Amino acid sequence: MGECVTVAVDAMGGDHGPRVTVAAALRCVQRDPDLVIILVGQQGAIEQALRARRAVAHERLRICHAEQVVEMDESPALAMRSKKQSSMRIAIDLVKSGEAAACVSAGNTGALMATARFVLKMLPGIERPAIASELPTMQGRVVMLDLGANVDCTPEHLLQFAVMGSVLVSAMDRKEAPSVGLLNIGEEEIKGNETVKRASELLRRSGLNFYGNVEGDDIYKGTTDVVVCDGFVGNVALKTSEGLAKMVSTMLREEFSRHFLRRVAAVIAWPVLNAFKRRVDPRRYNGATLLGLRGVVIKSHGGADRFSFEQAIDRAVHEVREAVLERISEKMAMAQHIAQQDAA
Amino acid sequence: MGECVTVAVDAMGGDHGPRVTVAAALRCVQRDPDLVIILVGQQGAIEQALRARRAVAHERLRICHAEQVVEMDESPALAMRSKKQSSMRIAIDLVKSGEAAACVSAGNTGALMATARFVLKMLPGIERPAIASELPTMQGRVVMLDLGANVDCTPEHLLQFAVMGSVLVSAMDRKEAPSVGLLNIGEEEIKGNETVKRASELLRRSGLNFYGNVEGDDIYKGTTDVVVCDGFVGNVALKTSEGLAKMVSTMLREEFSRHFLRRVAAVIAWPVLNAFKRRVDPRRYNGATLLGLRGVVIKSHGGADRFSFEQAIDRAVHEVREAVLERISEKMAMAQHIAQQDAA
Repeated sequence: MGECVTVAVDAMGGDHGPRVTVAAALRCVQRDPDLVIILVGQQGAIEQALRARRAVAHERLRICHAEQVVEMDESPALAMRSKKQSSMRIAIDLVKSGEAAACVSAGNTGALMATARFVLKMLPGIERPAIASELPTMQGRVVMLDLGANVDCTPEHLLQFAVMGSVLVSAMDRKEAPSVGLLNIGEEEIKGNETVKRASELLRRSGLNFYGNVEGDDIYKGTTDVVVCDGFVGNVALKTSEGLAKMVSTMLREEFSRHFLRRVAAVIAWPVLNAFKRRVDPRRYNGATLLGLRGVVIKSHGGADRFSFEQAIDRAVHEVREAVLERISEKMAMAQHIAQQDAA
Repeated sequence: MGECVTVAVDAMGGDHGPRVTVAAALRCVQRDPDLVIILVGQQGAIEQALRARRAVAHERLRICHAEQVVEMDESPALAMRSKKQSSMRIAIDLVKSGEAAACVSAGNTGALMATARFVLKMLPGIERPAIASELPTMQGRVVMLDLGANVDCTPEHLLQFAVMGSVLVSAMDRKEAPSVGLLNIGEEEIKGNETVKRASELLRRSGLNFYGNVEGDDIYKGTTDVVVCDGFVGNVALKTSEGLAKMVSTMLREEFSRHFLRRVAAVIAWPVLNAFKRRVDPRRYNGATLLGLRGVVIKSHGGADRFSFEQAIDRAVHEVREAVLERISEKMAMAQHIAQQDAA
């Protein structure tokens, strides 16, 4: 048993809204006796979702009514300005006021990022928030960031991402000094663009366990515990992976259903394919952290199902319990100190 | 029967050297009665590889002796300066002199790029060469470029890549106006960096069949015929895909060999898995085109086997027969004309 943690959940976000978010929240409070969840959203819709789970109330499941909903395709700037009573905004406000230690939303990523940044502000020493997520590797898992929050990064931003990613892994996996790789390309002659070259120099004298440059294939090899890149590159790498995974699974399904004999083969191969699927199941890795803010903010995949959304809530709880934010501030101060000593 | 095409093959390049390159060349001339191949490399090694295939000579297979070999890990700049008698350099020289219409090498990419650019120079209107390759998609295939030749691209470079990619697809697949996508990230608020934004404007008034922005997952969805991006992003996307594909195949193999029953399942599922593998077999897509040079230059994967290297030679022949270079020059002139009219 640990200390009690309160998490604000944007109940209206995501493709499925309360049906998924409320069911997941209910499971989480049932599993974790030290967890309180505030469900933020339209009271009627939340109560209906609770009734659908045959649960009218739970002592550690509270409802905070919010009138508005941020749509998935709404402009983030507009959402931020005009929807101050949205479930997303109020969930973030609860973190700001200290009533909740973290918030989780499956809503509009851009709006969540913009609103969280506006309301919560940045941690000292961090100029830009980054989206960090875990990915499966041959060795276990890797934390990769930034996955799309920033498209034009300076070497200093990449250093800050490295510090945050390193802290995240050391807090979550209890690793002393996680190895950090800087995503680059391999050609001898060109060895990356100017930003990456200078970031590499900064990382070398950061006090982090800097492995050096890694290439795209190192992500899934699990060469390092953390992979750092700018948000444009990270987002392309992530989406490309999603596309390839989709193609592979579609083609496998097509091949296994092409004719009768193959369908028989599919039945026999099913447990094996299933075991394989479990190993790379993206639902297990749901919950990207918006790192660098003065508050734990977790973005769930919009299409998350109950199991998947539970992982996102779990991640929020875990980050609060492991004091990720405090550790980032400490580590950032340390890295800046080392850099100054080095410069002196 | 078409016109006779002569291709210079760097027989020494790649991880396997003449054993693979000579065997592939032999197969290609046997298959194609209008193809002449000049094998460039150490005469002794080439003759030995020919004897190993029980073929002492072939009337359309010539040997051009080259004393030096560019090593796979050699600095491109050094290789270019100090190895003027290398098999790679002489193969490119044969294109320059017009003795060959194209050259193929599985050697050091950086050295091939640097040497080809130095010897052959660029096509009019093209400032930078780009590495283009085909990838399998759910719909068929896509041509993606640049895959790593340029790390800092201007919007104009991206436009030139789009023209070249479009010509490549229309020549190779006989498509009238291939659709071109600009690789970008999806967040509403940020919609890509400045370069991509400006490239998008240029593409809109290029006369190309510009689809608009695409995201990473569109590559394998086959949303467009061509995907354009800078070499840093393209290289990361390609290598990330390679890494993920490797992880998937390793994990599948592990799951299918975990215990006796699963090995039985593997035997039954084998023909299906094999059919799947054939569909995405990277060997079929071997042969990246170094586009933009005054000569057809094809880079084979270093680890290519005979089948794979044959595809690279076939690609060279195909590009020569379809007059890809002439078409690029025409299209580039047309795009510039449209842009000028538009500006006037």
